[in-house]
Amino acid sequence: MAYLNDNYLKLKAGYLFPEIGRRVKAFCDAHPDAAKRLIRCGIGDVTEPLPPAVIAAMHKAVDEMGARETFHGYGPEQGYEWLRHAIAQNDFRDRGMDVADDEIFVSDGSKCDCGSILDILGAKNKIAISDPVYPVYVDTNVMAGHTGEANEAGAYGKLVYLPCRPSNGFIPEPPKKHVDVIYLCSPNNPTGAAATREQLEAWVKYALANKAIILFDAAYEAYITDPAMPHSIYEIPGARECAIEFRSFSKNGGFTGTRCAFTVVPKALQAVTKTGESKPLHPLWSRRMTTKFNGVSYVVQRGAEALYSAEGKEQVAALIKFYLGNAEILRAGAKKAGLKVFGGVNAPYIWVRTPKDVTSWQAFDKILHDANVVITPGSGFGSKGEGYFRISSFNSRANADEVARRLQELKW
Amino acid sequence: MAYLNDNYLKLKAGYLFPEIGRRVKAFCDAHPDAAKRLIRCGIGDVTEPLPPAVIAAMHKAVDEMGARETFHGYGPEQGYEWLRHAIAQNDFRDRGMDVADDEIFVSDGSKCDCGSILDILGAKNKIAISDPVYPVYVDTNVMAGHTGEANEAGAYGKLVYLPCRPSNGFIPEPPKKHVDVIYLCSPNNPTGAAATREQLEAWVKYALANKAIILFDAAYEAYITDPAMPHSIYEIPGARECAIEFRSFSKNGGFTGTRCAFTVVPKALQAVTKTGESKPLHPLWSRRMTTKFNGVSYVVQRGAEALYSAEGKEQVAALIKFYLGNAEILRAGAKKAGLKVFGGVNAPYIWVRTPKDVTSWQAFDKILHDANVVITPGSGFGSKGEGYFRISSFNSRANADEVARRLQELKW
Repeated sequence: MAYLNDNYLKLKAGYLFPEIGRRVKAFCDAHPDAAKRLIRCGIGDVTEPLPPAVIAAMHKAVDEMGARETFHGYGPEQGYEWLRHAIAQNDFRDRGMDVADDEIFVSDGSKCDCGSILDILGAKNKIAISDPVYPVYVDTNVMAGHTGEANEAGAYGKLVYLPCRPSNGFIPEPPKKHVDVIYLCSPNNPTGAAATREQLEAWVKYALANKAIILFDAAYEAYITDPAMPHSIYEIPGARECAIEFRSFSKNGGFTGTRCAFTVVPKALQAVTKTGESKPLHPLWSRRMTTKFNGVSYVVQRGAEALYSAEGKEQVAALIKFYLGNAEILRAGAKKAGLKVFGGVNAPYIWVRTPKDVTSWQAFDKILHDANVVITPGSGFGSKGEGYFRISSFNSRANADEVARRLQELKW
Repeated sequence: MAYLNDNYLKLKAGYLFPEIGRRVKAFCDAHPDAAKRLIRCGIGDVTEPLPPAVIAAMHKAVDEMGARETFHGYGPEQGYEWLRHAIAQNDFRDRGMDVADDEIFVSDGSKCDCGSILDILGAKNKIAISDPVYPVYVDTNVMAGHTGEANEAGAYGKLVYLPCRPSNGFIPEPPKKHVDVIYLCSPNNPTGAAATREQLEAWVKYALANKAIILFDAAYEAYITDPAMPHSIYEIPGARECAIEFRSFSKNGGFTGTRCAFTVVPKALQAVTKTGESKPLHPLWSRRMTTKFNGVSYVVQRGAEALYSAEGKEQVAALIKFYLGNAEILRAGAKKAGLKVFGGVNAPYIWVRTPKDVTSWQAFDKILHDANVVITPGSGFGSKGEGYFRISSFNSRANADEVARRLQELKW
C-alpha cells in the first residue's frame, strides 16, 4: 500500500488566492453586469508590460535558440554566471555588501525557494512566523510536518507566531523564548510595513545569540523610499552568519508571468547536525538545486540580466514610481473614506483596518458586491490579520483612481 | 540552534554530471590541444536548435509581454488551460487513452517533478528503483530520508534495487516481495531499453495487487520506433489506478534549456493515510503545485503549445529522426569496434559493455584521453551499471560519424 503524506491533510481549506478566485468567479457568474466593472486589487500581480530592455533581450535570446551555433541546452542549475555576477555586483557589492557570485542561486520564483528551503533544514527546528504572514511560509511548514494540527482560528500547533500590530509597526520583535528558524518579510506582504535598521539589528543579534537562521524575504525591496531603511539583511553586520535572503524579479521587473528570482546563501552560514556538529548550508542548497532543479529558461535569464543594464534600471525605476503613485492615490482615497490606513509608502500594499466590527471576509464580500473591487481579506494571512484587508497598488492609474473613488462611496 | 537535514550528508560525492564536468575540465585545462577536438556524448543534452514553430510562437509571446493589453502576469500554477488541453488531447486522448485536461500539471522540468513527487508521499513507503537508474530517483529519496546509509558500492539501505541485465532486456521484473512505490523509466535512461506491453502489463498487475504506485518516467517516449511498444503507461488497462506519468519537452522539442515538462496525476489514483484510509493523490499534487510553484513562464508555455501544431509535429518528427540516425551510426561504430552494444533503437542512448575487465570510470578516462570523447560511465547510474558506459546520440551528424570512427581506433 502506497502511503500519502498525511501532513497535507492538516492544511486548512484552499490556499488563499485560489479561494479568492473561486468567490470572484461565483460573483461574476451571478452578476454579469457588475462583472464588467470589476477591478482586481487582490492578488499582488503586476499589470504593466515587461520593460522594453527585457523584451529586446528576450527576442535576441529566442533568436539564439533558433540557430545551432547559438543554441543553449542545459545551463548551470544555479544560474548562468553572467546573471549571478550581475545580481551580486549590482544588488549587493555596489551597495557595500559582501556577497560572492556563487552565493547567488537563480530560480524560477521566490515562492518556490521559500518552500524548497525547508528541504535542507532539519525536522527538529522550532519555527517562528509573523502573524499576519504570506501563507506560503506556513503552508510549506505544515506540508513538511513541522506543525501540529490547526486550531479553530487557523493557527497551527508547534509554530511560534509573532504578532504584528500597529504598536510594533507591524514588524515583530524577537521573542523571549528560543526559536531556530525565523521568517521575516520586509517590505512586508501583506501589511506594507518595512523594517528599520534597528529592528533588523535586533533580529540579527537574536539570531547570532540563538544560532538561529533568518529566512529574509526581500521580494519588495525595490519599493523602499526611505533612504535610511535597509534593502537587504546583509546590510546588517553579522547577517552573513545567520541569514538566507530571497529576492525576486516579479515585482521590480514585472516578472510574475515570466518567472525568475534568486536566493542568497552565504558560505559563512552554518547549521548543526542531529549530533550538534556545525556544517555550512551552502553545499546543501547547491546539491538540492543541482539534483531537484534544472535551471531557469535561458531566454528568461537573458531577460532578467537586461534589468541590470542602464536602460533596464531606468525602466524599472519608472515602473516602481508608477506603482507607488497608485499606492499614494489608494492610501489617500481610503483615508478620505474614513478608514485607518497603514503601509503603501515603502511597499506596494495598503493595509486597511475594517470599520466597526466588520470581519475581513465580510469586508471582502461587501467591497466585491457594492464596489465591485477585489481586495484580499487580512484574515487569510493569519489570525492577527482579522479585521484588516489588503489593497494592492498593482493596477492602471485609471483603476487606482476609480478604486479610490469607489471606496469613498461605500456605506459600511 | 538551527538544524540541517542530516539526510543530505548520506549522499555520495557529487551528482554524476557535475562530476563528469569536473573531470572533463581538468583534462581540457591540462591538454588544450586535445580539448579542441573534444566531442561530448556525455550528458543527454540536445544540440539542435528549437523548431521554427516554437521560435515563432515564443517571439509572438514576447511581443505580447511587451504590451499592456496582452501582458500576462501570474498564470495558473498548474499550467494554462490551452496547453493542458493540447497535451491531454494530442498525447493521450487522440491515442485512445482516458486522460482529462485537469489531470495534466505543467512544470519546468521532469527532474523537478520526479523529485517533488515525494512531497506528497509518506515516509513509510518501501521504494523500488531499477539498477542502473537515473540518479535523481535515488538521490531525492536519500534527501527525503527514505534510505539508510550507502554501502561501498554506493547502494543505499532500505531501497529495493531491481537489477537490469541483458537477460531481462534491461527492464526489471516485478519483485517477489512487496514494495509500495516503483520507479520505471521507459524508454530507459541510461540503458536505452524500452518496455514491451507485456512487461508493463506485469507491472500494472503487480501494482494493483499490492496497492503500489508506479512512477513512470516517459521523457523519451518520442524515440520509440517499434509500433508495438506502449508510449504511455496509460495504454495499459488499470494504470489510471496505480500510476503517475512524467513527460518532458526536453528531448522531443529540444527544451533542455527552455524548460517545460508535465506530470499526469489521474484522479482515480489513491494512496492511504497512516491509519489506512484511501484518499486521491490528485488534490494533494494540486495543492503542492499551487503552494510551492508559480507556473511556467508564459513565453515558454506558448513555445510548448507550438509543438502540437501541424508544423511543430513535423519539425519534432524530423528532430527525432535525426537523433535516431546518429544513434544508428554510433551503434554500428561501436559494434565494428568489437564492443557489445544495447539500446539506441527505441531511445537516444547506446549502452555499451566495456571490454575485458575495464571498469566504467576506467573506460570514461580512456575514451576521454585517447579518443577525446566524453561518455557517461555506467557505474554512475548504480552498481549494476558497472562495466558499461552510455553514449548519447544528441550531437551533430558530423560528430556522430567522427565518434563512430574514433571508437574503432581505440586500443583497449
